[in-house]
Amino acid sequence: MYTLYSMRRSGNSYKVRLALAQLGIAHELMEVDILRGETRTPEFLAMNPSGHVPLLQVAPEKFLPESNAILWYLAENTPLLSDDPVERAATLQWMFFEQHALEPNLGAAWFWLVLVKGGRELQQHALEEWMEEGYRALGVMDKHLSRQDFLADDRYSIADIALYAYTHVAEQCDFDLALFPAVRDWLDRVAAQPNHVAMDWHPDLKMVAAQ
Amino acid sequence: MYTLYSMRRSGNSYKVRLALAQLGIAHELMEVDILRGETRTPEFLAMNPSGHVPLLQVAPEKFLPESNAILWYLAENTPLLSDDPVERAATLQWMFFEQHALEPNLGAAWFWLVLVKGGRELQQHALEEWMEEGYRALGVMDKHLSRQDFLADDRYSIADIALYAYTHVAEQCDFDLALFPAVRDWLDRVAAQPNHVAMDWHPDLKMVAAQ
Repeated sequence: MYTLYSMRRSGNSYKVRLALAQLGIAHELMEVDILRGETRTPEFLAMNPSGHVPLLQVAPEKFLPESNAILWYLAENTPLLSDDPVERAATLQWMFFEQHALEPNLGAAWFWLVLVKGGRELQQHALEEWMEEGYRALGVMDKHLSRQDFLADDRYSIADIALYAYTHVAEQCDFDLALFPAVRDWLDRVAAQPNHVAMDWHPDLKMVAAQ
Repeated sequence: MYTLYSMRRSGNSYKVRLALAQLGIAHELMEVDILRGETRTPEFLAMNPSGHVPLLQVAPEKFLPESNAILWYLAENTPLLSDDPVERAATLQWMFFEQHALEPNLGAAWFWLVLVKGGRELQQHALEEWMEEGYRALGVMDKHLSRQDFLADDRYSIADIALYAYTHVAEQCDFDLALFPAVRDWLDRVAAQPNHVAMDWHPDLKMVAAQ
């Protein structure tokens, strides 16, 4: 059985939890609090030298980091990933877009404005750029989603999961989604998918710190 | 036949040119000068709303952006991408790492310090962070490459192509690779692969501006 090292309020971790839930894959969930430095301990760094969650243990000595790589690994040969080469490439296209255009801006805003107490004051200089670049990314998504229901294809895929994670909390960190009606409608379509779970949902959580 | 829209001195574009050369895939190459705004014309934005190169035309009305998504599309069922699910996930892991940890720092330094005249003065405030974060990414690579010859596996793959692109020009934009001997040795191994081509190589180049 897989073990997932995850943080409940991390959008990157949520991607993997959502895919595991929708694919019905049994797993053990270990809660890791990055705000308490739990990804910087020697034990954690031995599993993932980058010091990030999520991290999926796929074999006794084999750990897979990077949320979108984990999504791809889990979704192969499932309804969440197409068999068609061009559709698969479009899926990856949006997942790479997420990592360089959306997550560095919406994810950073989420981390510093919502998770870290006093973060807004600490990061005031960076916030303006996150907002500008984040709005640019949302604009690209909105234009695309005004023409099709889901990002990579006409059906829901791991590309939608990857971009939903930080977009669905954007309004909690200053972004006004009223400017992007196609994005808002897409958020509703994603949340209406079978076996959707919320970011803070998990029935059986173990705390790494309590081990 | 594929058409690749590419810029000769863009590391992201180079990844795709290198893969096409090593896979022996015939293609037409269109040179696009981003410094002259050629990715911001209505004609180019109609092909790629994100306004970036590289862009691969895979069918008359089908354009694929994102360098690493293009690499994956081209490399499926070739020696540049494993069939093993865990090795494939490790390949993607490093390609996502490249897009959020390496390219935003080494790629930005390359663009502003080497391609843009006067860029160093314009970006002085950002350079310190690019250097710090870029060195952190190189450190993660160096540790990993001190234990294995190639990034995702024991053999050369598109993960190596993806991270080679900006790492092999890092010393042209202030990074000192003497600090990372395993990275330097890996650069030599990559450059020694069959049918390797240099960043500025192409025998048959057409200029978009001359169309």
